[in-house]
Amino acid sequence: MKRQRKTGKTPNVYAALVHYPTFNRRREVVTTAVTTVDIHDIARCCRTYGIKRFFVVTPISAQQELISRIVSHWTDGSGATVDHPRKEAMLLVEICGTIEEAVKAIKGMSGKSPKTIVTSAQNKNRTGITDFAAMRAAIEEDENPFLLIFGTGWGLADEVSSAADYKLEALAPESDYNHLSVRTAAAIIIDRLMGAS
Amino acid sequence: MKRQRKTGKTPNVYAALVHYPTFNRRREVVTTAVTTVDIHDIARCCRTYGIKRFFVVTPISAQQELISRIVSHWTDGSGATVDHPRKEAMLLVEICGTIEEAVKAIKGMSGKSPKTIVTSAQNKNRTGITDFAAMRAAIEEDENPFLLIFGTGWGLADEVSSAADYKLEALAPESDYNHLSVRTAAAIIIDRLMGAS
Repeated sequence: MKRQRKTGKTPNVYAALVHYPTFNRRREVVTTAVTTVDIHDIARCCRTYGIKRFFVVTPISAQQELISRIVSHWTDGSGATVDHPRKEAMLLVEICGTIEEAVKAIKGMSGKSPKTIVTSAQNKNRTGITDFAAMRAAIEEDENPFLLIFGTGWGLADEVSSAADYKLEALAPESDYNHLSVRTAAAIIIDRLMGAS
Repeated sequence: MKRQRKTGKTPNVYAALVHYPTFNRRREVVTTAVTTVDIHDIARCCRTYGIKRFFVVTPISAQQELISRIVSHWTDGSGATVDHPRKEAMLLVEICGTIEEAVKAIKGMSGKSPKTIVTSAQNKNRTGITDFAAMRAAIEEDENPFLLIFGTGWGLADEVSSAADYKLEALAPESDYNHLSVRTAAAIIIDRLMGAS
């Protein structure tokens, strides 16, 4: 069951949590509100698995300010003085307005544009899906950085999915229920792609 | 990479989220406060993977009442009238005062006492650890029910761990950071033990 890395290469992976453009339950394209527990949970998960940066994407400046206040509470504010592991995780968070900005930031950091990976709760009506095994192998073998993109609300809008380099398979397509929170879905996906066993 | 089930048997698995006895950060045994997002997230995960019942364990009656109000909002109250997938997940929640009560309830439902599995964020100072592959095989092959036990706060107290039938390995022992939220850790563990791929 142990999944050994095929190469000695450290995966060069970034993550983004997208609040626009996403679907609401009626499949209208909307901007969702930031949920603070998503930021905490996914940041801690990124830190655990060695993801290099966690982009929180929202075009709304009031929401960007909210995220900035939460992050700086733990990294510079009173939260930083209590010796809590949350601080280390929060240092990975970067706020940006669009996915393109995140891509640009990664290019600035690593010298290469990332290959983008979109995630979805279902496989229905999706074509060109990459399964977890193939995605894991690509991440381990490819020298490029990768950007793993998670949608809030009822999922990423079609324009994001169709522009992506990889469309990752849904994590429980055989289940009659596919309503995990984005926090827990992101954790499972990161574990499947980057976990040791 | 696909992990096929070895038998046609449906795993007979229950989960418990324990608020007492747990450690605080100074390794004192305490009762932690219930976090509502834990209940929502883990219930949705249980529903996705076919876990039969999700026990929320706290001896404090005011906390039991809080959980009961949250659950009944979605199952009987105004939350039940909006057609939201949360309802189906919340129907799996059962409140109890001790782990022993959960064990008794499972015996009542399935006719057999469950084998208990404790989880931990680290392998340090633990003996007799079962790895994920062996645990997954036991769940698939053993006719007994299993109770997967998650601790809040800084983990399950020693008395819970030492009484368990299985001590499951930590999920990221090779990481220099092991501070996932219990919601995300539970999701990853459930996926590793019961996920299709």
